[in-house]
Amino acid sequence: MKSVIGFLLLLVSASAFAQSPADALIAHELQSSRAYETLSHLTDDIGARLSGSKGAAYAVTWATQQFREWEIPVSNEPVKVPHWVRGREEAQLVSPAHHQLVLTAIGGSVATPAAGITADVIEVDSFDDLKTLGAAKLRGKIVFYNNPMDMDLVRAHRAFEAYRIAVAFRGAGASRAAEFGAKAIVIRSVGSASLRTPHTGALHYDPKQPRIPAGAMTAEDAMLVHRLLARGKRVRMHMVLTPRTLPDVMSANVIAEIRGSEKPEEIVLIGAHLDSWDLATGAIDDGSGVAMVMETMRLLKEMNLRPRRTIRAVLYMNEENGLRGGQQYAKDHGKEKHIAAIETDAGGAAPTGFTTTLKGDALAALESRTKPLAAVSSNHFEVAEETGADTGPLTAAGVPGFGLVPEPLHYFDYHHTNADTLDKVDPKELAQDSAAVAALAWILAE
Amino acid sequence: MKSVIGFLLLLVSASAFAQSPADALIAHELQSSRAYETLSHLTDDIGARLSGSKGAAYAVTWATQQFREWEIPVSNEPVKVPHWVRGREEAQLVSPAHHQLVLTAIGGSVATPAAGITADVIEVDSFDDLKTLGAAKLRGKIVFYNNPMDMDLVRAHRAFEAYRIAVAFRGAGASRAAEFGAKAIVIRSVGSASLRTPHTGALHYDPKQPRIPAGAMTAEDAMLVHRLLARGKRVRMHMVLTPRTLPDVMSANVIAEIRGSEKPEEIVLIGAHLDSWDLATGAIDDGSGVAMVMETMRLLKEMNLRPRRTIRAVLYMNEENGLRGGQQYAKDHGKEKHIAAIETDAGGAAPTGFTTTLKGDALAALESRTKPLAAVSSNHFEVAEETGADTGPLTAAGVPGFGLVPEPLHYFDYHHTNADTLDKVDPKELAQDSAAVAALAWILAE
Repeated sequence: MKSVIGFLLLLVSASAFAQSPADALIAHELQSSRAYETLSHLTDDIGARLSGSKGAAYAVTWATQQFREWEIPVSNEPVKVPHWVRGREEAQLVSPAHHQLVLTAIGGSVATPAAGITADVIEVDSFDDLKTLGAAKLRGKIVFYNNPMDMDLVRAHRAFEAYRIAVAFRGAGASRAAEFGAKAIVIRSVGSASLRTPHTGALHYDPKQPRIPAGAMTAEDAMLVHRLLARGKRVRMHMVLTPRTLPDVMSANVIAEIRGSEKPEEIVLIGAHLDSWDLATGAIDDGSGVAMVMETMRLLKEMNLRPRRTIRAVLYMNEENGLRGGQQYAKDHGKEKHIAAIETDAGGAAPTGFTTTLKGDALAALESRTKPLAAVSSNHFEVAEETGADTGPLTAAGVPGFGLVPEPLHYFDYHHTNADTLDKVDPKELAQDSAAVAALAWILAE
Repeated sequence: MKSVIGFLLLLVSASAFAQSPADALIAHELQSSRAYETLSHLTDDIGARLSGSKGAAYAVTWATQQFREWEIPVSNEPVKVPHWVRGREEAQLVSPAHHQLVLTAIGGSVATPAAGITADVIEVDSFDDLKTLGAAKLRGKIVFYNNPMDMDLVRAHRAFEAYRIAVAFRGAGASRAAEFGAKAIVIRSVGSASLRTPHTGALHYDPKQPRIPAGAMTAEDAMLVHRLLARGKRVRMHMVLTPRTLPDVMSANVIAEIRGSEKPEEIVLIGAHLDSWDLATGAIDDGSGVAMVMETMRLLKEMNLRPRRTIRAVLYMNEENGLRGGQQYAKDHGKEKHIAAIETDAGGAAPTGFTTTLKGDALAALESRTKPLAAVSSNHFEVAEETGADTGPLTAAGVPGFGLVPEPLHYFDYHHTNADTLDKVDPKELAQDSAAVAALAWILAE
């Protein structure tokens, strides 16, 4: 009853100022945002939170507790997650000159022997190169994938496109090289800036191939090895990686919802992922998304706004190295009636709009109702095949998908590095993002 | 005789195109530069070269050999240098939350016990803060100097000024804190960019105070610790540093010269330092300077240009952590007649001019002859107290000093970090620098 009165009061005040609830949500968020405070807790007080880690477990507890404090119904839904733990990671060139290299294990990599491996380095820049060289030249070698991000694409604000092209070698490179007898692989880190900065991320082993160790060198180290090879030198590398894959761990998705007043069975999902890589505190990937999703719920509650349909927040576990949370959610909830799935997993820079799987008339109909988003420069929808990883199973099944698009120019400077820290996020921009997510969720739920 | 004919031919061709030898030097260097190739050898084939290391010894041999190949008289003059070796460097926050920190030992630091130290962190931003807090609050603590570079100064192209202000705490901070019983210090790295990038550099222990360990955290880590302390949290840090100071090592300055045709006893010195920090290959600090100095000599030789006065190249050893090469040179050669000392130790970005200790009429007289430098945007002299560290003892004794000023905007992004690598230098800009140094040296020698 209290919330209905609140809602009516808000409608009265909104109409007095010719303000829709979506306008009011945006205005209120830009004034009173607590998203950055939420992000500060997640990053400073909890920190790194790779699946299976203490940090990840703490993040689940903390987010649940936070929703409870805000008096928003919340539950934990079990998800079994991988537990990969980084170990030592050291590499040197031992020939033609000694150089200390900076590299990091690619997530999921198996270990080298404890004493490391030493082998000649063979450079390739495509999977076709592997075939051309063949097992005769690759057996026993360290295959070096030298694939920088296309910086022209990055500067054209198409960084995610550049990422998708370059990241193929991180994901599949180990198994593709193992097929030809390679002993290990190293890639050039997939990133758009480097101060000797290695970027981690996940790989996927092909079960048909032997599992070989995989590391990501910094751009500087990749350029060095490239120069030496280009001068016709024989380059030998020593590499030690000692990661371990421990038994799976029970973890959880954190799910909170504000039930719809008229059609509670119809759900607008807003999602982000609670886990992060282990090298830093995951402020942009995806602490920012978590903060936006939590802030949307807090805001609806604080403003006593109850939508016609249910708005459900899902903080997924294990986006980074398994996607188990997204898969588990789809398995458990796929048959419910999802009206839309909004995912935010692209950082916390200023919003520029959304990607969407909606097209044609359906998109046009929505666009006639999203004018309030212009207040945060987000009334722009770009049609895309995919709008997010965690919500991928839903959108693949036909649920309209939306993905927040913060300005992507610098996202891959920090992505999956030890520099993904709170200072990379601007509180005002995060508030604009939160406002965009909240307003779109509201509009879709109405 | 050959060189005289060459010189005459050049004069003929120069006058045909109204070109002075300085003009010709610049034009030839911009066309045919091999400075970048020289820098590539120094960084890729030798690498890091901190005083006392194998790399430093190899650099002496290589530079000497290179001058010999160019048929330029060269000698090694002995210098006894410190031999400090970096060890493990690890730090974590253990309270209020666990955070892996990224830090590096400040050069010259003593070690912690092998098991490390764990202590509360107290933040200060001035030496006065130490007095205010006093021994009661500082005894047994880790003192944290939180002094960022003034980025307004950096953006105003006054990065060296910003550096000099912030670096005071790196140099003297350990002893000043030890005076109040501190157990160790950490500073915010002195740099103008960070992707979790620690910057090393030297400290100076006051012989009257106990020597305590000193580390440099990244900007991100400094901001984290600052935020936690600002929220009233008790911050405890665990730190392990295991550097060692080994016995001094005999090394050398590498000295090459082209004797003057008329006044060979009058010397125009051009200098840079051959040693680098150990974290990277010292491409900007000071591989670029070494390349410019060597290129100047190569160019004079290749063009058969013989100046009236002697041009002497000095590649100093141990600028970074002792200045022993500069001191030794001054001791051995201070009584010779140095007409000028040009130092280049500020990176390899595009040239903007020179600092100089010359003033008034003497500077005006020089400026009437330096118009050729305008071709490489370097006909600009800014009066300064100091124009370089290695040539400091000479200029302090009255020798007119000159310091090349490459564009300083990004210098401290890389300075003293593991990102000081060849890719940070643009071959064309390095050629412009080399041309500027060569032309100024020629003008001063004529």
